[in-house]
Amino acid sequence: MSLLESTIKRIELQDRVWRQKATERLDKLTMPHWALGRLLDMGQDLAGITRSINPPVRRKAIVVMAADHGVAAEGVSKYPQEVTGQMVHNFVNGGAGINALARLAGARVVVVDMGVAGDLSALVQAGKIVSKRMAAGTKNIVRGPAMSRDEAIRCIEAGIEIVRDLDPSIDLFGTGDMGIANTTASSAVAAVITGCSVSEVTGHGTGIDDKQFAHKVSVINKVLEINRPNSADGLDVLAKVGGFEIGGIVGLILGAAAERKPILVDGFISSAGALIAKLLAPPAVEYMFVAHNSVEQGHRCMHKFLGKEPLLDLNLRLGEGTGAALAMNLIEAAARILTEVATFDEAGVSKAEQ
Amino acid sequence: MSLLESTIKRIELQDRVWRQKATERLDKLTMPHWALGRLLDMGQDLAGITRSINPPVRRKAIVVMAADHGVAAEGVSKYPQEVTGQMVHNFVNGGAGINALARLAGARVVVVDMGVAGDLSALVQAGKIVSKRMAAGTKNIVRGPAMSRDEAIRCIEAGIEIVRDLDPSIDLFGTGDMGIANTTASSAVAAVITGCSVSEVTGHGTGIDDKQFAHKVSVINKVLEINRPNSADGLDVLAKVGGFEIGGIVGLILGAAAERKPILVDGFISSAGALIAKLLAPPAVEYMFVAHNSVEQGHRCMHKFLGKEPLLDLNLRLGEGTGAALAMNLIEAAARILTEVATFDEAGVSKAEQ
Repeated sequence: MSLLESTIKRIELQDRVWRQKATERLDKLTMPHWALGRLLDMGQDLAGITRSINPPVRRKAIVVMAADHGVAAEGVSKYPQEVTGQMVHNFVNGGAGINALARLAGARVVVVDMGVAGDLSALVQAGKIVSKRMAAGTKNIVRGPAMSRDEAIRCIEAGIEIVRDLDPSIDLFGTGDMGIANTTASSAVAAVITGCSVSEVTGHGTGIDDKQFAHKVSVINKVLEINRPNSADGLDVLAKVGGFEIGGIVGLILGAAAERKPILVDGFISSAGALIAKLLAPPAVEYMFVAHNSVEQGHRCMHKFLGKEPLLDLNLRLGEGTGAALAMNLIEAAARILTEVATFDEAGVSKAEQ
Repeated sequence: MSLLESTIKRIELQDRVWRQKATERLDKLTMPHWALGRLLDMGQDLAGITRSINPPVRRKAIVVMAADHGVAAEGVSKYPQEVTGQMVHNFVNGGAGINALARLAGARVVVVDMGVAGDLSALVQAGKIVSKRMAAGTKNIVRGPAMSRDEAIRCIEAGIEIVRDLDPSIDLFGTGDMGIANTTASSAVAAVITGCSVSEVTGHGTGIDDKQFAHKVSVINKVLEINRPNSADGLDVLAKVGGFEIGGIVGLILGAAAERKPILVDGFISSAGALIAKLLAPPAVEYMFVAHNSVEQGHRCMHKFLGKEPLLDLNLRLGEGTGAALAMNLIEAAARILTEVATFDEAGVSKAEQ
């Protein structure tokens, strides 16, 4: 059995007994019933995920998956392809948005080269990034598949390995991405899997104008026409229209779910990974928290397919894991409410009149 | 000149020069333009408030204003009046929702007796809470005014004094409340000031059913009919249909604005205070961040009047300052992005193609 198959086999639904134990405590906290709303819902989830009513969430990591996309040659982004590698250097130097927000969250940032076009070997040798390099970027998906089916499996397994290697020391994972043109691949994945139209799931990415937007939509339509991915087969979708970092994110999610660890799904690109993860292992959605609602309009179609409500809505559209890092505070808040708030009996506070 | 008058006189709009300095830096950060959306908007605000592009936000306090309401006698809440004092003990013992979330935020919790019906003198003598006690609760507003105009001024000044005493050691304030029946007073304040109808600004408070809701609406209509507050006169609204803790919150906001400190406005009751603060000193809104969108439906009318978008929307309806404590993380995030993220030139990353 492959690592992917054995991982999928290990993913079970949340533990209903532990969810129930959490519910019983949350029902009795010194506050009007369920008055902290989603923080209490999340407390149930954390108990069901970790099999504990004292769920550990202190040790955190954001894994930023970086890769390039052959479709960048179609002029779908405002930025040149070399920005992917330049931003990896920025991550390593601590100067990017994700670094600032991960420091605030007390989270490690783990940067993974899944297939960046530039040469990052010096950073790998210095131990600054992890290499799970598949190739110097995917193939151009307007001409054919992004990668082979075997490569799709391998990039997902790379994500699983990252979680497996980090797991014993990490309680809470967050996904992140970097890759010029990766909103184009993600929109293609979203259109195939959610059934929403290409124009519904396509956004302005890094900031293209209306003319560039029309071009991007036509590129994605062409991508789908040429590749015809099977919407029920996550590996086929990833191989034909995905990306190496999207595959890595699929692996992070499956790996975390298999280890019964909560994982925050960041923005648009990470959610494309989440869609594929759900296709491959439906119970994995019970380990996901959707960090935020992106400016990218297609994000809503994705959340609907995942059956998830995002935690934050702050007009973010950066990626890198920035939304996941921000939302870690809310996961910690949910754990604190479950473990630190007194019940009516413990505090000697009068209950509601019936 | 009274403390209230001199405080109002000191409140100026945000500093436009410092806002502009922040904007210039935020425009050049290594990310697509304005890709962290509201975090960048908040960075501008923090610079304009504090006159710094390195705005301090590390030292935080949530001030929980507690008081009772004579209108509790009308059966508008599911909880008996003694819960107000019991919850003050819970705050002091660290067992309430606000304690858990303030610990997570690294914020002090300062509990103020603005007029709780029970005897809290032992806690005052032990230095566990601050007394700015006006009376053993307001008068029943279905019969006449909650308090005199002079008392309205004094409870606002109490809030200003709290900020003044804390100020040198606190960078970021949050408001909080505790008071059985205080959603009834807050809905009355909201209806008068926003012009929304009573049924629009009335919610289910601590969890009343539909029959109790209809009763609450009829009580609030009666309150407004009996008292006829002048919607342009914040002191008249506070005196006639407000509460001592609402007045205290008005004072916190005016005090923070006068000291050029950012203040997070918590939920429904705190927002009633914010409405009055805006009437008394319109520029004070530029120092407010609205923490969250409460389950209480009237909250939206309040945000519209304030011209503010809430930061979080998590189905909270607890008060105590819990939403403010949660949102402190986002204020810190905004400050970190402004100060810690590299610009394109600093990081050697290629800019967008024009």
